[in-house]
Amino acid sequence: MQDVNLGIVGLGNVGSGTLTILSENAGQIARKLGFRLNVAAVCSRSAKSRTLPEAAKSAFVTEDWGEVVNHPGVDVVAELIGGTTVAREVVEGAIAAGKSVVTANKELIALDGAAIWQKAAARGVTLAMEASVCGGIPIHAVLREGIAGDRVETLFGILNGTSNYILTEIEQHGSAFDDVLAEAQKLGYAEADPTADVDGFDARSKLALLASLAFGVRLHPDSIHTEGIRRVSPIDFQYARQLGCTIKLLCSARRDGSGLFVSVRSALLARNTIMAGVQGAYNAVWCRGAFGADTFYYGRGAGPNPTGVAVVSDLMRVARELRPSPAHRVPPFAFTSLEESAPLDIGLQKRPWYLRFRITDRPGIIRDLSSILAEHAISIDAVLQLPDQDKHNLPFVITLESSPEAAVRRAVEKMSKLDFMVQPPLALPIERGL
Amino acid sequence: MQDVNLGIVGLGNVGSGTLTILSENAGQIARKLGFRLNVAAVCSRSAKSRTLPEAAKSAFVTEDWGEVVNHPGVDVVAELIGGTTVAREVVEGAIAAGKSVVTANKELIALDGAAIWQKAAARGVTLAMEASVCGGIPIHAVLREGIAGDRVETLFGILNGTSNYILTEIEQHGSAFDDVLAEAQKLGYAEADPTADVDGFDARSKLALLASLAFGVRLHPDSIHTEGIRRVSPIDFQYARQLGCTIKLLCSARRDGSGLFVSVRSALLARNTIMAGVQGAYNAVWCRGAFGADTFYYGRGAGPNPTGVAVVSDLMRVARELRPSPAHRVPPFAFTSLEESAPLDIGLQKRPWYLRFRITDRPGIIRDLSSILAEHAISIDAVLQLPDQDKHNLPFVITLESSPEAAVRRAVEKMSKLDFMVQPPLALPIERGL
Repeated sequence: MQDVNLGIVGLGNVGSGTLTILSENAGQIARKLGFRLNVAAVCSRSAKSRTLPEAAKSAFVTEDWGEVVNHPGVDVVAELIGGTTVAREVVEGAIAAGKSVVTANKELIALDGAAIWQKAAARGVTLAMEASVCGGIPIHAVLREGIAGDRVETLFGILNGTSNYILTEIEQHGSAFDDVLAEAQKLGYAEADPTADVDGFDARSKLALLASLAFGVRLHPDSIHTEGIRRVSPIDFQYARQLGCTIKLLCSARRDGSGLFVSVRSALLARNTIMAGVQGAYNAVWCRGAFGADTFYYGRGAGPNPTGVAVVSDLMRVARELRPSPAHRVPPFAFTSLEESAPLDIGLQKRPWYLRFRITDRPGIIRDLSSILAEHAISIDAVLQLPDQDKHNLPFVITLESSPEAAVRRAVEKMSKLDFMVQPPLALPIERGL
Repeated sequence: MQDVNLGIVGLGNVGSGTLTILSENAGQIARKLGFRLNVAAVCSRSAKSRTLPEAAKSAFVTEDWGEVVNHPGVDVVAELIGGTTVAREVVEGAIAAGKSVVTANKELIALDGAAIWQKAAARGVTLAMEASVCGGIPIHAVLREGIAGDRVETLFGILNGTSNYILTEIEQHGSAFDDVLAEAQKLGYAEADPTADVDGFDARSKLALLASLAFGVRLHPDSIHTEGIRRVSPIDFQYARQLGCTIKLLCSARRDGSGLFVSVRSALLARNTIMAGVQGAYNAVWCRGAFGADTFYYGRGAGPNPTGVAVVSDLMRVARELRPSPAHRVPPFAFTSLEESAPLDIGLQKRPWYLRFRITDRPGIIRDLSSILAEHAISIDAVLQLPDQDKHNLPFVITLESSPEAAVRRAVEKMSKLDFMVQPPLALPIERGL
């Protein structure tokens, strides 16, 4: 089956991430599409002087973006250079040449996305922009298709990773804003000029874009009420905790009658909400629909690979849309065919474990249990006993270091037969890394 | 522009939710599609004896599903009756008649989805099944398109609302499993025969389906290691808390070399993970991709309206795919055109507020502040003061009942000028309902 040919303009962080993913995931991408994505042309000022990933090995390489956009073999163009001057020429040039465009460009889309899209529609090509906001969260696909049937009533977002990182640090370490900002700048998490992040302007552009997708409106970012995080201090987190809350830079768009209340500002957020758990440099979006009720989406806000995933996913969708025959419809199981499969033997899986016992207390219990564990080459992590328990039905816990499940099961089976056991031990794996 | 005509088979909870959404969201759906979805035919045993929602007012109504599937005016069929006998005949009958199918049927898809889809592909039509698992979370759209470019390494799910509700109750009230189950049965949250929910079989079918979408494999549900929640007791939550964890019925699929470890069972889950915050009858899915890192998706597991949103979103996608001309490509902003819009005056928005002061302490401070609030018709909710603070730079907090922002701003402005203020008050809205 014929490949679809890509032209990549820009090999910075996002462009490099995109080429890496196109290289390393090539097999899986072909299994999902039923055809291959082929990098036909690449434009970058540095491309000729460096080693390109596998996917671009046979690509035409140039420093002139016009040669990519007008390359007769290129079907789809990815604009990954950022900014709003040359990037706009690339995007509009590709559209004029009849090529569909994938872009990761938040500034350009926030500034002029609706007009660019009208040009694309008029020329009969597609504009795809999942990577332009919340790179690591497929929020465009969700709003555009996943919950397209719902009517969004309220959308909240934590859309700026830097400010969320700073607030998390203030909360966890009780440090002052200025100190945390200075530290974040030293670590490279905040820019030398932090205004866009800490005063809410970056979040505001993103909120304007999400409001378009959720409500079908075009808002000028500077019409949005915007306050940053500079005045939030450690004492506010102490009071917030008393009120059952934390503090976040919250982007909010709320339907009221035929209008929208829209704001970006620090707000108290109840700790028992799923949104309150968004720590550090993560982003999240929370929607309440008129019918679908609450949904919540969470992931990395940026980064070459998370943003690259958004670009590659868009390239796949656009490539599929070039082929409107029934054989190229989106497969409902994501892959064009499924492999018959049986899971691996779960006994081979290594996990840390929690063993909870109920015993009749007597001397030598830890000795007997630890002997059995040692026989099975299992290491104990900790022994826990709650105070003031019934000695004839005494609950206590041993946690195990990461061990193969089969060995743990054999040890537990043997422990079950010990005379002091009131009931067989309960064995649960421990998951920390989610 | 010509409508797309729908045939709806089944008017139980999901079918009714679907018709409600098609009625009440008709305008927005047309703004997203560029054409209308028209309910042309409805099959239900009760349809003739009840009042149908607006969207079905002019539909052909029958008790014979064959008359819907073979209706010459019907372009797309929604199978919403459930079960695996008649439902299979409806789905396969529609495919044979050359109609694309949308289904909410977890049992049928888990049992035979891949074979049904092959029949659809061979006939050149589409199968869409977002509603079949995690009705309230657009997880199919996410895995199939949103993060299609990534390679999923690990997928965790909390996929059974009943068991998650029971575990949440045990944790919060320290009640025994049997007591919570009996109460849940009385309230209608658990079935008279709770086996499918509490022993993990329902979650297992869902996990098999999600594993297909994430990894491209077909797993037989009974090949999945499955244990339920019956042995988890309040004491386990006490120990889990000491270990920084909670306990969830965790569905897990983890790539290891060329195979997958797959299990459904109770597991300890670190409390500082976003997944640990999934309470009550909610569902959630957490993915780690090779490139996109961590993403997380959360919403209602079921319910007529959340599931109806999934059905309607699928109907919109399938209807659009019937029209492969460029004019019907998916619009990048979700709507075919955006309305120019300005936000409402944020001063009109009512919220509860947090006011944090820094003052030089003296008698009469609460009197002065409360007088200003009363002048602006604002009610105080609470006054909070932390112990042992500097009396010359004393922080304390007043929280306000829901009040219009403009009144709060005017009051704060006036307060700023009081002689005991060390700095202007910090005013933050309080969001609890997320």
